Amino acid sequence: MSCFELNILGCGSALPTTRHFPSSQVLNLRDKLYMVDCGEGAQIQLRSMHLKFNRLNHIFISHMHGDHCFGLPGLLSTLGLLGRTGELVVHAHPDAQKIFGPVLDYFCGALPYNVRFNPVDPYKSELVHEDRTVKVYSIPLKHRIPTCGYLFQELPKSAHIIRDMIDFHRIPVKQIAKIKEGADFVAEDGSVIPNQRLTRPADPPKKYAYCSDTAYYEKIIPIIQGVDLLFHEATFCEADKTRANETFHSSAKQAAMIAKAAGVKKLILGHFSARYPDNSILLEEAKTIFPDTILAKEDLVVKI
Amino acid sequence: MSCFELNILGCGSALPTTRHFPSSQVLNLRDKLYMVDCGEGAQIQLRSMHLKFNRLNHIFISHMHGDHCFGLPGLLSTLGLLGRTGELVVHAHPDAQKIFGPVLDYFCGALPYNVRFNPVDPYKSELVHEDRTVKVYSIPLKHRIPTCGYLFQELPKSAHIIRDMIDFHRIPVKQIAKIKEGADFVAEDGSVIPNQRLTRPADPPKKYAYCSDTAYYEKIIPIIQGVDLLFHEATFCEADKTRANETFHSSAKQAAMIAKAAGVKKLILGHFSARYPDNSILLEEAKTIFPDTILAKEDLVVKI
Repeated sequence: MSCFELNILGCGSALPTTRHFPSSQVLNLRDKLYMVDCGEGAQIQLRSMHLKFNRLNHIFISHMHGDHCFGLPGLLSTLGLLGRTGELVVHAHPDAQKIFGPVLDYFCGALPYNVRFNPVDPYKSELVHEDRTVKVYSIPLKHRIPTCGYLFQELPKSAHIIRDMIDFHRIPVKQIAKIKEGADFVAEDGSVIPNQRLTRPADPPKKYAYCSDTAYYEKIIPIIQGVDLLFHEATFCEADKTRANETFHSSAKQAAMIAKAAGVKKLILGHFSARYPDNSILLEEAKTIFPDTILAKEDLVVKI
Repeated sequence: MSCFELNILGCGSALPTTRHFPSSQVLNLRDKLYMVDCGEGAQIQLRSMHLKFNRLNHIFISHMHGDHCFGLPGLLSTLGLLGRTGELVVHAHPDAQKIFGPVLDYFCGALPYNVRFNPVDPYKSELVHEDRTVKVYSIPLKHRIPTCGYLFQELPKSAHIIRDMIDFHRIPVKQIAKIKEGADFVAEDGSVIPNQRLTRPADPPKKYAYCSDTAYYEKIIPIIQGVDLLFHEATFCEADKTRANETFHSSAKQAAMIAKAAGVKKLILGHFSARYPDNSILLEEAKTIFPDTILAKEDLVVKI
């Protein structure tokens, strides 16, 4: 019930390698799936990781570079073949509808469900989506083209019921929902059992931030302050910093500096350049600044 | 030098599975690569099979269903990132340029090379491409939308030089090209060594035919008569023939009947429906009609 998991579908960058798929990941939040970026092969990885296609209702695209969105037509087409009827929302740069709309119309003209494009302004941090589980905010980033990351802020959960107390006071099942929401229990004899004797506090809601692609950009620090998990791109290592600067990407060290400055709990690096046969050089570099760092990797599931 | 190999990049159909990529294959013809169909993930498989991106100059698309062409934007974009300068030709239905042109313009506006779309009329068999190695003809097929297969007809090769005879007659290196083309050798003393004493005949030129997607369609038989290798789709088995008919696909048995009627040397089945966890049911079915049948499979290389 309180599941909040990050699934890495792909964490490479634009050039294909035998090690990585391009950018795509899926947040599993209490069995609802939220995809972030949809590089080529995302649907193949979704299948391979046994994630349920019909649990996916929202796709968030960071920017309009192919390695972050060329998997969209195939995935949306497949959802149609699978008989989907519920609306799917693609949150993306306003150009997304203009570019992918005609492709979808041509290839999937008779889709049995509606694809709605929600235009995201990449220049300000604002609420992009809200449902009963999560609020999602955009995070303006600094890249060659308009780009934004996404902050997933889980909504507060109900308190945990203490089973033994429910049994002891013979509390009817129909009262339990109210007690979870904070109500006291009034017994038949009028006595009041205060809520805090019947419940344990809910787990604190979690936060996850996705920041890719971006140069080193301190303006994101207040937005991602204290998140439980930060995904920050680390396309290059410090030795290739010139290239990082030219292409508006970050080094692993820079990603770690952001994580440290924002006081996040854990950092996960991704969007690896094809030039590194072994990404551990990036991990070591980041750990010198921010020890609680891990490397993204295809098929990895991280509990948040 | 006389290499003629079929590389299977993907042989699944539209729905993603953990077993197959969607349709794509590469013919390696004397170190020139010709791609046939370009489903999502084609560039990933091209890399994984260690095929050289810069040897690829022609892509032939059978029809405008996503599982046969959604890999195009990613592959063409990657070729640009790899610094390609030579023109690349996409032979496809006339709609291909209309649909993929805007996508390429948007994502790869500054491509360092030219992508030329060669419109292919799917309703008649005609010469689509010719170079010094091969002639490629279209093969009209019978599918839900306009579709054509492709026949690759290798051009006659030069004769093999008999090394010992060259040495014995002390034939200068500069004469060898002419002798390969059929010339006799005239020695300094005026004596003539006839060509057939200096050469062995070239291997006969080979033919490969790609027929996917298509219902059972006897009109292709004269076009593919006697080819060395026939790829024919076998999306379904006979038990699912109703579904095959509805969707204008073939059963494995039907593919084998076509192979037999056309007197081809070998049949390879592909475009497998996601419904069969094990494709050997299709192989067995086809073999009852046409014994020299094999199954396509990702990463398979077939020498023709």
